[in-house]
Parts: sequence; structure tokens; C-alpha cells
Amino acid sequence: MTVRHPGEVMGSRKPTMADVARHAGVSLKTVSRVVNQEPHVRASLQARVQAAISALGYRRNEAAARLARGATMLTLGLVMENISNEFYSRLAAAVEAAAAEHEALVVFGSYEESSDKERMLIESMYARGVDCLIVVPSAADHAWLAEHASLTTVFVDRVPPGLEAADVVLLDDVWGGRTATEHLLSHGHRRIALISDDDGVSSVHDRATGYRTALAAAGVAAEEELVVHGVFDPRRVAYEVARLLDLPSPPTALFATNNRAAIGILHALRERPERPAYVGFDDFALADVFNPGVTVVRYDTARLARSAVDLLLNPSRAARRMKVPVELVPRGSGELPPPFRPTMG
Amino acid sequence: MTVRHPGEVMGSRKPTMADVARHAGVSLKTVSRVVNQEPHVRASLQARVQAAISALGYRRNEAAARLARGATMLTLGLVMENISNEFYSRLAAAVEAAAAEHEALVVFGSYEESSDKERMLIESMYARGVDCLIVVPSAADHAWLAEHASLTTVFVDRVPPGLEAADVVLLDDVWGGRTATEHLLSHGHRRIALISDDDGVSSVHDRATGYRTALAAAGVAAEEELVVHGVFDPRRVAYEVARLLDLPSPPTALFATNNRAAIGILHALRERPERPAYVGFDDFALADVFNPGVTVVRYDTARLARSAVDLLLNPSRAARRMKVPVELVPRGSGELPPPFRPTMG
Repeated sequence: MTVRHPGEVMGSRKPTMADVARHAGVSLKTVSRVVNQEPHVRASLQARVQAAISALGYRRNEAAARLARGATMLTLGLVMENISNEFYSRLAAAVEAAAAEHEALVVFGSYEESSDKERMLIESMYARGVDCLIVVPSAADHAWLAEHASLTTVFVDRVPPGLEAADVVLLDDVWGGRTATEHLLSHGHRRIALISDDDGVSSVHDRATGYRTALAAAGVAAEEELVVHGVFDPRRVAYEVARLLDLPSPPTALFATNNRAAIGILHALRERPERPAYVGFDDFALADVFNPGVTVVRYDTARLARSAVDLLLNPSRAARRMKVPVELVPRGSGELPPPFRPTMG
Repeated sequence: MTVRHPGEVMGSRKPTMADVARHAGVSLKTVSRVVNQEPHVRASLQARVQAAISALGYRRNEAAARLARGATMLTLGLVMENISNEFYSRLAAAVEAAAAEHEALVVFGSYEESSDKERMLIESMYARGVDCLIVVPSAADHAWLAEHASLTTVFVDRVPPGLEAADVVLLDDVWGGRTATEHLLSHGHRRIALISDDDGVSSVHDRATGYRTALAAAGVAAEEELVVHGVFDPRRVAYEVARLLDLPSPPTALFATNNRAAIGILHALRERPERPAYVGFDDFALADVFNPGVTVVRYDTARLARSAVDLLLNPSRAARRMKVPVELVPRGSGELPPPFRPTMG
């Protein structure tokens, strides 16, 4: 049997994958799977594709080689709550950068507060051959994930309920909440409001614990009328802040446990002649453009991501827990003094 | 052969997938593939798994059924430039919402200005069985994608170079650029700077075309010293804006072709006693919290996403091109008048 050279078959053009597919009578996808040496291609199909490759003199060119590399690159799944939140988009970019150092690709998905969707995403990534997972878990029970012990998973930012023996990378949330509150106390504030979202999530809970710890250490009573939990939507946050500031004895300072609250808080404060001090957890791109700049508890997102990727690529039998440090960045909003109120005497 | 019931084998606990895997001597992943009826599992492995399922009395519970649904759900890949940019995080959230209406999941990846990485991401998603793709293409040639004709792909926001016959959903970029510029002209500006990034990308190029068209229609000469192309980094944008404002004859207004420029522009303007007017393309979460609010060209990201998903799920032989309308939202920054400069005479 003579090997026919490409020139004989179709002029000067080099044969493409599509030509191989047509010649073998299979789909392009099958050719791609054979060329990329993916498992689970039926032997009969493999043989037909290989025969077509020989017959046409098809050669994987540089581009095809790159293609194969892409297909066989380690692929890491990142499952997050809500990609439109800047915390997650920063995290996703940082995980991509950390993965790139190991020549790994990242695919992500977000579950929008639905733990059912979280599970479907994880299962879908699992079924599609993602090699390992980084998950920012929802507040739901994650015991079911133990069934998938073969899929290496590292959790980020929150402890997954129901999975004791998991690798987790956390921020130093208690310390951050405590430092933010101490900072406001040190500027003379005694009525400090807490604006928070889902207290069932460990990071949020820990930040609130830090807040209460700081108040207790300073001998300041925590007033429940100044504590708002469970607010996510910026409009709702703005409403709650306005409500707090209209109390007979309003707070003179705010501590918000996440960056999402900033949109609502900054909206609410824009209208106010007398500004309460404000410290937020999580930095955001425009925080230092406001006047005053927004004082935040900040951390190195790249370090958070790199720690997770490192744990992922160096699996261990024993569960590990890491803490990434946080720091307070004064920019003006957290250093505003309480308003001067003349007291009777 | 007696079927052993779970109770006999391991006390009161129901058998899990992990038990099936151990019993069959296969990986959890193989069990998952069999349970989820995925193709390409060797017949011998299938038989072993099925035997273990019978022997242990393993039953897919409600959770396992949901698992299977997750694994077989339509999965859509979204390939973007840079997830840390709010345009993309909004787009990703909107595509997820649109896909959810069709009970489809979305996995995304971003290629960070590297067209090589764009290609690897697409190939990796393809190899991993993603069912169809939405791509915001880089400025590189995409002719290679024609080899993967079997993978339905819709492009968003930009025309993919080298692929004439592709489905594309665009914004009305020329109209948006023209309207933004006309708005500034109508407020008395004649020296309007253009702050732009990669002019090789069709959307950016079209917005700049709109700018030039509006100037020409108003009989205003386009001054090349007021046009900045190729700036991405916010610090670089801030530097360029400061440089423009320090020109002997500075611009009195700015038009920026994307939201990423806002960070740099707002930084640069914060220090300036005399503010130029400013209109940006793309809305962003904090745009109306600034004082003045940032005037933007806005569009319905949900509509952009829904159009792409609709094209994807209703494939056609003929290439289709759709345009999503845009609108100008005045918030203050774009309505500032030029500074009063007394003229000699």
C-alpha cells in the first residue's frame, strides 16, 4: 500500500483535522480525542482515525501540538458563590495566576446562593474530568462531598459544614473583625454598628466574633439594635444604614463584614451631612478614590489563591488548615471622629 | 448467589459510592461515570460496577439522582479576557442566569490578554466535553477554530478576526461612541480626549469610530494629541490623564472606551481642582455613588447574555450577527461645562 502524500490528495494544502474526520467518517471531536490521546475512545474508531491520519499524511503541526497540550493540561475547577462580587472576581483572577505558575488551567462556576447549584456544579466539573477543585463553600452541609474522596478538593475562605477532615485556607477573620472594631474604638467611637450578611458562613461569623470581642475587651456593651445580619442586596444595605442613622441614638461608626456592603453604605452616606466613620472588610478597586477614602481590612488575594493551589498540588492524608493574615489600611473613612455632641451637665 | 444486604455488610449504614468503588476495585470516578451513564466506560468496568451495585444493594438516593442530573446537564463554556474586570464578571453572572433558564450550567475561564491561553482554554473545554461555547475573542486570528466546527460557538462583544462565518452578538458600539461624544459636544466641549485600550479589538475600534464620526459631524477637528490608545493598567491611565490635563491646551472633556479606565481616570481627577467632563463606556456598580455621578454609556448585560445563549441553543447554518442597543445615562460627570476661560479681544 502506498502512502499518499497530501499534495496528491488535495493540492498544495496541508491536510487538516477536518480532512481526517471526513476521510475516517467520524466527527471532528473523535479525531480530536484520538489525536489528544484521550481515554475511552472505542478501539474501532481509533483504528479508523489512525488509518485516515496515515492515508492523508496528516501531521500534528505546532498548533495541533499546542492543542494537545491544552487538552491534557491540568485543569482546576473553582466553585464560588457569586462571580459578580469583586471578592470572587479577584479570587478567580488570583487562582488563574497561581495555576498558571504550574501550567494549569482554571475553569470556574458560581452558584448564586443556591447550595443545590453548588452541588451540581461540583458534580458537573467532576464528571467532565476536572482534575481538582477549589471551593468557596455555601453554608449547607457538605458531607456528601466525602463520597468523592478521589477528587482532591481545597476549601477557601470558609469552613465547609459537615466536612471535618478537609484542607481549608482561611483569612484571619476574627483578628480582622477585632482590629477593625478596635480601630474605631481608638478614634473615640462607642456606638459601632455591625452590617453583616450570612452569619451561617464561618468567615462572616468569625468577623462578627472579632467585633464582639473588641467591644467586650473595651468594656463597651454590644447593643443588638446596632447589629444587622442577613443583608445582601446593596439597596437593602442602604435602607438598613439609613434606618440605623435615624435611630434616636444612632451609631457613630459602622463596621461592614464584606465588600458587597460598600455599595449600599456609600449610597446611604452620600446623602448625609454628618458622616459616621466606616471600616469595611475586603478591599475594592475604587476604595481609595472616594473622599474620604474607604478604610478597609485587606489581605493578599494572591497569597490566598497561591496557598490553596499549593495545598491542592501537594495532597496529604492529614487535613490541613491555613490562615492568611489580614491588615487594616487607614484611608480616611475609618478615622473620622464621632460628632461633637454637647452634653447636659 | 445471595444478594447481601447493606446491613449485613456494614451495619446500619447505607452503602455509598465509595463502598461500590472498593467492592468493584475501581476508582470512585469510574463508579460515578457508570452511575451517570456517561459514554466511553469500558464494558468490563461497567459490568464490575453493576455487579458491585447489585451485591451491596446500592441505591441511588435522591442526592445521587441530583448528582446524575448535574453530570448530564448541558454545560456551556464561557471564555473571557479578564475576570477581574467588572465587564466580564457582570457578563459571567448574566450568562449564568440566562443558562439557568435552560437548566444549563456554565463554566468560565479567562485568558488575560494571551491569545495562546485563549486557545488552550477553548481546547481544554472542548476536550472535557463542554457542550457549546461563548467566547469574547482576543484580537488574534481565530481561523483555527473553524477546525472545531462540531463545537457550536457564539462570539460576544467582538468580531473574531479570521472567522467570517460566525454567530456574533455585539453592542451598538459605533452609536455608543458617537452618542457619548455628541453629549459632550452639546455641553459646549470642543477639546475632547479619547482614552482607549486595544484598538485591534472590534468593539474598542468601533467606539473610537463613533467618537471620530461625532467630531467630524460637528466640524470639530480630531486632534491626535488628545487620543490615547493601548492603555490598560489603571495607573497608566491615571498617568496619561494627568499628562493630557497638563498640556498647554488641555482637553475639557474625556471619553473613555471602557470601564477599566474609570479607576485610573477617577484617581487622576481626584487631585484636580478643575474637573473635565467625563463619559465612560460600560456601567459599573459604584458609578452613581461618586460626586458627581459618572455619566456612562450603558446596556442591558442580561440581554447581551440572553441573546448569546439563544443563538447557541438555536444553531443555524447561516452566520448571524446581532446588535444590542446602548443608551447614555447622565449622572453629572458628563454634564460639567467647559471651564470659563476669558479670551483676549
